[in-house]
Amino acid sequence: MRIDIISVIPELMQSPFEYSIIKRAQDKGLVEIHFHNLRDYAINNYGKIDDSPFGGGAGMVLMIEPIDKCINKLKSERNYDEIIYMTPDAPVLNQQMANTLSLKGNLIILTGHYKGVDQRVRDLFITKEISIGDYVLSGGEFATIVLCDAIIRLLPGVLGDETSALTDSFQDDLLAPEVYTRPAVYQNKEVPKVLLSGDFKKIDEWREQNAIERTERIRPDLLD
Amino acid sequence: MRIDIISVIPELMQSPFEYSIIKRAQDKGLVEIHFHNLRDYAINNYGKIDDSPFGGGAGMVLMIEPIDKCINKLKSERNYDEIIYMTPDAPVLNQQMANTLSLKGNLIILTGHYKGVDQRVRDLFITKEISIGDYVLSGGEFATIVLCDAIIRLLPGVLGDETSALTDSFQDDLLAPEVYTRPAVYQNKEVPKVLLSGDFKKIDEWREQNAIERTERIRPDLLD
Repeated sequence: MRIDIISVIPELMQSPFEYSIIKRAQDKGLVEIHFHNLRDYAINNYGKIDDSPFGGGAGMVLMIEPIDKCINKLKSERNYDEIIYMTPDAPVLNQQMANTLSLKGNLIILTGHYKGVDQRVRDLFITKEISIGDYVLSGGEFATIVLCDAIIRLLPGVLGDETSALTDSFQDDLLAPEVYTRPAVYQNKEVPKVLLSGDFKKIDEWREQNAIERTERIRPDLLD
Repeated sequence: MRIDIISVIPELMQSPFEYSIIKRAQDKGLVEIHFHNLRDYAINNYGKIDDSPFGGGAGMVLMIEPIDKCINKLKSERNYDEIIYMTPDAPVLNQQMANTLSLKGNLIILTGHYKGVDQRVRDLFITKEISIGDYVLSGGEFATIVLCDAIIRLLPGVLGDETSALTDSFQDDLLAPEVYTRPAVYQNKEVPKVLLSGDFKKIDEWREQNAIERTERIRPDLLD
């Protein structure tokens, strides 16, 4: 998989891609990440990439021309499966979307910033718009980190243990069951006895029941 | 506001806090961010902080003792309004929650990693659990970045223009209207004429109508 990320402040995303699982996936050659600074495609020598919104109002809007130039350059070099725009006014990411995107080959992710991009960018170039949730961030960079991590950890070979991702929350529409580790007793708080029983059939039943009970209590909407 | 972040890999979160709005907020003294490496509270000299789950299964679980020690040290130094645990099996962050948290004084954010923390940590120490969405990430670090950004941008004085945050998506349960900037015509695509009219009453009406139409089309669930 190859992911090209277009951003006004690619530096914001530096450290998340230099540690942990995303780093390991790159080292293993399972994913290539390329950052593109929108200012390299500015419309003048002063690095202009944004302007005030037509009709007035607060905030700056990213102009269409620099984005057009950057996307066009990338598209001239290879085919892309999706050109994604991260924005809060879009369908919200869920595990199924992450699963689907993890099967793609080449992705472009355009990260909004300030008040967002000129609407014509969205009409002309973008094939998929994604929000990570119903809240506003200072830029699409953080949403991009989240999307990349959600996708990359699903690529075969990225997680140490292949079964690990399958037992996560949401893969079966249930929250994950409670987990416990040593010590068995901590300040008088004991772990559930069944988990120490060694009876794996009973443990599986307990986990299934616990996952259902927790989902009903914490996120009943997932069971609708 | 002061935010103490407890993590296994604080380096992951480095760059997002060193640029842009979160950086500016720190420089202005509007927020203090303190990172705490859980390994500094390990149970032995080898830095042990996690162990296999009781009952078997994939993934590692963060142990209660290092977390207990770290949280206790912080609580001995000052009072905290909330001790937050970032985890996918929790109520999902929305703008209203971000607004509420932005009014607090001192927060601790515990970022899960691997398969999460021993359930007893959640039962004993955590006052609020937050998910950023219905998808699984490789660690709570990215969710923590998102939560901090969503909160910090709302602190008075952080955004350049105070009105900017109020016209974002979700502050009125509607998606934001389309935005456009120069040039007025790009490759035959024109901006809506009303935005060039200078008639601010008409522009306001168009934006309100556009926000409603977009919300109905893209996120009808927000109107329920």
